Amino acid sequence: MLPHLHVVLVTPKFAENVGAAARACANMGCANLVLVAPQRWDEERARTLATGTGLDVLRTMRQEPDLATAVQGMATVFGTTARGGGWRKGILTPAQAAPLLHEVMQQGEPAALVFGPEDHGLTNEDTSRCSRLVTIPTASEHSSLNLAQAVLLMLYTLFTTRPAAPFRPAGPPESRLATHGERETLYATLQATLTRMDFLKGDNPDYWMLPIRRFLERTPLRRHEFNLLMGLCRQVAWLAGGGTREGNGKDAQGG
Amino acid sequence: MLPHLHVVLVTPKFAENVGAAARACANMGCANLVLVAPQRWDEERARTLATGTGLDVLRTMRQEPDLATAVQGMATVFGTTARGGGWRKGILTPAQAAPLLHEVMQQGEPAALVFGPEDHGLTNEDTSRCSRLVTIPTASEHSSLNLAQAVLLMLYTLFTTRPAAPFRPAGPPESRLATHGERETLYATLQATLTRMDFLKGDNPDYWMLPIRRFLERTPLRRHEFNLLMGLCRQVAWLAGGGTREGNGKDAQGG
Repeated sequence: MLPHLHVVLVTPKFAENVGAAARACANMGCANLVLVAPQRWDEERARTLATGTGLDVLRTMRQEPDLATAVQGMATVFGTTARGGGWRKGILTPAQAAPLLHEVMQQGEPAALVFGPEDHGLTNEDTSRCSRLVTIPTASEHSSLNLAQAVLLMLYTLFTTRPAAPFRPAGPPESRLATHGERETLYATLQATLTRMDFLKGDNPDYWMLPIRRFLERTPLRRHEFNLLMGLCRQVAWLAGGGTREGNGKDAQGG
Repeated sequence: MLPHLHVVLVTPKFAENVGAAARACANMGCANLVLVAPQRWDEERARTLATGTGLDVLRTMRQEPDLATAVQGMATVFGTTARGGGWRKGILTPAQAAPLLHEVMQQGEPAALVFGPEDHGLTNEDTSRCSRLVTIPTASEHSSLNLAQAVLLMLYTLFTTRPAAPFRPAGPPESRLATHGERETLYATLQATLTRMDFLKGDNPDYWMLPIRRFLERTPLRRHEFNLLMGLCRQVAWLAGGGTREGNGKDAQGG
């Protein structure tokens, strides 16, 4: 079973694919399906493809207005993409992604697996929100997997590679993992700070932030490390002049 | 790519599933789809689900009247089944089946992967023709995979576990693997011989033959071993009285 996994479908075009994805979730023991701003939602068509197996998943499915909200509380967010290139670097295979996801989920932390719409896949903005990207290998460049097929293959890989024993970290308990929302707060604060320092180019700061995001997404960030980095940012912003307690900076005061 | 793999769909109910299976084949590099006595064949509906990707596979698809004919020339035949029990023993997972299939295919020998109809799966008669049986693991007993999903998961497992280097047997070349047709000839001859010897119970010889078939299907049988066993059967039948050169026995004379 995959109790800590959340399958997130971003603006899917066909309700049938949502239903078939629900069936794939049920078959592989994942009860958490999240629908982000579907293009044309039709529950009846989804139910037909979910068949008996997937109806429970469909019934408890969460609907969210955008990806940011959908993955707000997640400890890690893995996005799926049909191809690499451009902004997309360090792409994993499902078999490589599985142990990384299991490591997070075995600590009882929620992990998201994000799938883009049938025609275009995830946007660059969507993928920049992801901790890591995964591509399902196929026989040729011209191959195309259906949305529900991609969901099925990812979940099957996770399902069949479940670690035998639960993960037990050595030593005293650490603070919990930072959520996706906290990490986004950190990146925004970091970007503002680096811009104020004239470290980031003014013309496209989102683009120049990408390698920094990628570096920080490599290792799971814990809550106390988040506090540390937020404090550091405030200090640097103050040095660079015009440092304030504005915006989300105050979040970092906590535990 | 999986050039030596043949995906065999036995009496599928919905042409859409044949189309989606063709798409799965194309995505995973298998060009050989075989359709056995479909319940309602509708090429147009199959083409819709095959999408651009699967049309070539659909175009070159072979149609056969029964499973025996479909797998006649195969070196090995792996059947898929949703559950074990009864006559079905020693069932493999896809990950266990993959290296066994690759071992045959790397010798350039054809291998079949057989899928039953959507509602009932393969019959006991069908599965008794199979060298080995495979079940795709799912989260619960009540799980149900769609036919095309089952095809996709099996092919994906084979595709992602392709051995790096081609298999090179040590020593002088052996004779080719016996085909499924030759093995069926051997089993029929063996059954007749054992019946004549009063070794097999008269009431249900097919059932009593199953452990013998399973034993012989464990290791790939080569042509010269087939000849040897056929010769042995003829000799025993002659000892038991009433031995003849009848039926397929004469096939064994060859090289």
